[in-house]
Amino acid sequence: MVDRLRGNLVVGQSGGPTAVINSSLQGVIEEAKRHPEIQGIYGMLNGIQGALDENMIDLRKQPPATIRGLSSTPSAALGSCRYKIAPEEYTKILGVLKAHNIRYFFYIGGNDSMDTSSKISKVAEKDGYELRVIGVPKTIDNDLESTDHCPGYGSVARWVAISTMEAGLDSTAMWAFDKVKVIELMGRDTGWITAATTLGKCSEEDPPHLTYLPEVPLIHDKFIEDVRGVCDKLGFCVVTVCEGLKNENGAPLVESKRAVDTDAFGHTQLGGVADYLSGLAGSKLNLKARFDKPGTIQRVSMTTTSKVDLKEAYAVGQAAVKQATKGETDMMVTLIRAPGKVYRCTTGLVALEKVANVTKSVPRNFINKEGNGMTGEYREYAIPLIGEPLPKYVKVKKLLVPKKMNA
Amino acid sequence: MVDRLRGNLVVGQSGGPTAVINSSLQGVIEEAKRHPEIQGIYGMLNGIQGALDENMIDLRKQPPATIRGLSSTPSAALGSCRYKIAPEEYTKILGVLKAHNIRYFFYIGGNDSMDTSSKISKVAEKDGYELRVIGVPKTIDNDLESTDHCPGYGSVARWVAISTMEAGLDSTAMWAFDKVKVIELMGRDTGWITAATTLGKCSEEDPPHLTYLPEVPLIHDKFIEDVRGVCDKLGFCVVTVCEGLKNENGAPLVESKRAVDTDAFGHTQLGGVADYLSGLAGSKLNLKARFDKPGTIQRVSMTTTSKVDLKEAYAVGQAAVKQATKGETDMMVTLIRAPGKVYRCTTGLVALEKVANVTKSVPRNFINKEGNGMTGEYREYAIPLIGEPLPKYVKVKKLLVPKKMNA
Repeated sequence: MVDRLRGNLVVGQSGGPTAVINSSLQGVIEEAKRHPEIQGIYGMLNGIQGALDENMIDLRKQPPATIRGLSSTPSAALGSCRYKIAPEEYTKILGVLKAHNIRYFFYIGGNDSMDTSSKISKVAEKDGYELRVIGVPKTIDNDLESTDHCPGYGSVARWVAISTMEAGLDSTAMWAFDKVKVIELMGRDTGWITAATTLGKCSEEDPPHLTYLPEVPLIHDKFIEDVRGVCDKLGFCVVTVCEGLKNENGAPLVESKRAVDTDAFGHTQLGGVADYLSGLAGSKLNLKARFDKPGTIQRVSMTTTSKVDLKEAYAVGQAAVKQATKGETDMMVTLIRAPGKVYRCTTGLVALEKVANVTKSVPRNFINKEGNGMTGEYREYAIPLIGEPLPKYVKVKKLLVPKKMNA
Repeated sequence: MVDRLRGNLVVGQSGGPTAVINSSLQGVIEEAKRHPEIQGIYGMLNGIQGALDENMIDLRKQPPATIRGLSSTPSAALGSCRYKIAPEEYTKILGVLKAHNIRYFFYIGGNDSMDTSSKISKVAEKDGYELRVIGVPKTIDNDLESTDHCPGYGSVARWVAISTMEAGLDSTAMWAFDKVKVIELMGRDTGWITAATTLGKCSEEDPPHLTYLPEVPLIHDKFIEDVRGVCDKLGFCVVTVCEGLKNENGAPLVESKRAVDTDAFGHTQLGGVADYLSGLAGSKLNLKARFDKPGTIQRVSMTTTSKVDLKEAYAVGQAAVKQATKGETDMMVTLIRAPGKVYRCTTGLVALEKVANVTKSVPRNFINKEGNGMTGEYREYAIPLIGEPLPKYVKVKKLLVPKKMNA
């Protein structure tokens, strides 16, 4: 049993918002209140920038209804950031933490945030300042190493699965007129979100007919032939694509040329892939083509939140506090899937360094041989994460009335 | 009391699918089953094209679960179309209707479909063939004349209101990084859908900060200054725009140049407005800008269906059959809002000719003076249509921890 470390706690949210990141925040706050050694519970405004600028708010003073309401509120309630800390700024941050007797530091975010957390942990250690640093996983991208999946993914996956079923029914009704529809999903380097568009697909005829992930380079001619093949067979084609699709040289298919669209980590804003590919298919095949690009709506929608995801997002926040009070530091909470047929996850820990800046791609066995769809292995992995069964939509039977005119 | 007209019924769905068009179909089918003079209940496959090609299915033979499931299934279960009938084809259609002893013709659609219905009614009348033709209003665009609103609008309005609240919270969290977000909504000529993005807005600070409708020409310099003004004040800006925005000359801001993208009615595919305007604001103001374009997802989403809309969509289908069996023809069912504080709608009738090809724009008093937002009058009109109250999301209070370093 370690000595109880008395002091204040600070928590921050970082990177792209999600439907459930506030559940993790709620988990941290509610668990912290159970530990008497944790005195002040502070929130950094706009992630690490709030620590740097000493902009922190008092979370103990929030009305109870606000804390309770966090789990039904999307986006990042404390504000988020994409700020890359300069080496000299870590000392400044440590100064702020020390000045406020912060002994517990929780950062809810993705792999960039785990890098930031890891560095803060190191600078405190070097200084001899006892600080418990725990990373709380969050990313719709589902690309963190050493965790079965990431809170945020189940909800975006559910949203894109249902939205693709619905936009697919739209195309099915309009097949004679809108021939090609391309739907663009988020994902800088990995196709996890795009993969989830297939979760409502029950047969070969069901949309999406083609699904392309950045894990497999997109060959233009192959793409055109794929679309032509589906249109020849079904009369129309619904394609789902990742904004981060790469060409044969590994370069993004489309990216912004404006310097202002590059963030602090050097990531250029992507997007435009669906516009480009629908245009390409439309021109090459002389078919009417359109695209949907739900953009940020997909990542923060509470309308189709996965209950499993909500629960797990809370649990990882809670686990972070529990582990820190037990003496753990320099770690990220993970989700570990229990073996067996019934889905169950427990939490674990991994060294921050191991996840910092590492990206977990969709494994090749989750993608079909052709590189244009997903496999049953992916389905098995993902279905439990999206919570309740997907809606069942009816199809009328084509019970034709016998022809009298053209019989 | 008119004589009971014995014979078969045919129903079709036309134009862009919606979340509730199948409820209208269900209303037609279930009401038809109550009238013994209606024998066969047929569905045209892909709208009027199904009548032209004699592709009709038997709706009495569908499993009861399929008919019941229609109201929870989006898009158009019978398939839809955007087919403009050539004058000589009307005679062919009449031939099919006569061959199948069709005496009841119901067409669920927008103003193009009412034009088609009106012409079918005329050609039957001229031929002396007794045919009861009733149009059932359907359009997310909400642009039909002589009806308070159109089934389909309430649900798309609810979807865009919630999605804008959520994407707005996303921008609020990311304000320091993603400065400008432009969300593009559907609407060829009218801004009804875009207007609904403001329904979750409770204060000036809440997104969307600017809303542009095609009813007011977009002046480029004014747009840039509007965005600059909001960014100067709030640090970021969320803009909602209609795909059909017009410039000072009344021409679409952006439209496809490909001939394949023009439909049978001469409508060119729109879209690209948000891409264009986010690029414009980004370059001119040197700010990071992005766009969301949910596209067809917005019009067929069942995740946020308005219960009022669902109920009314069923009611207009039902009313069509009731009126036809009473002897009415050449009419479209309308929704009439009862005066008084509590929202209530009844159904009425209007001559098909009066609504055919006519577009109802958003009235000027629903749009603010500046032309960049909506008024209380619009809110009063639209709030009852979206059903249950919008979700309430919490905001943390900015109860700052006193500074110690930079105090």
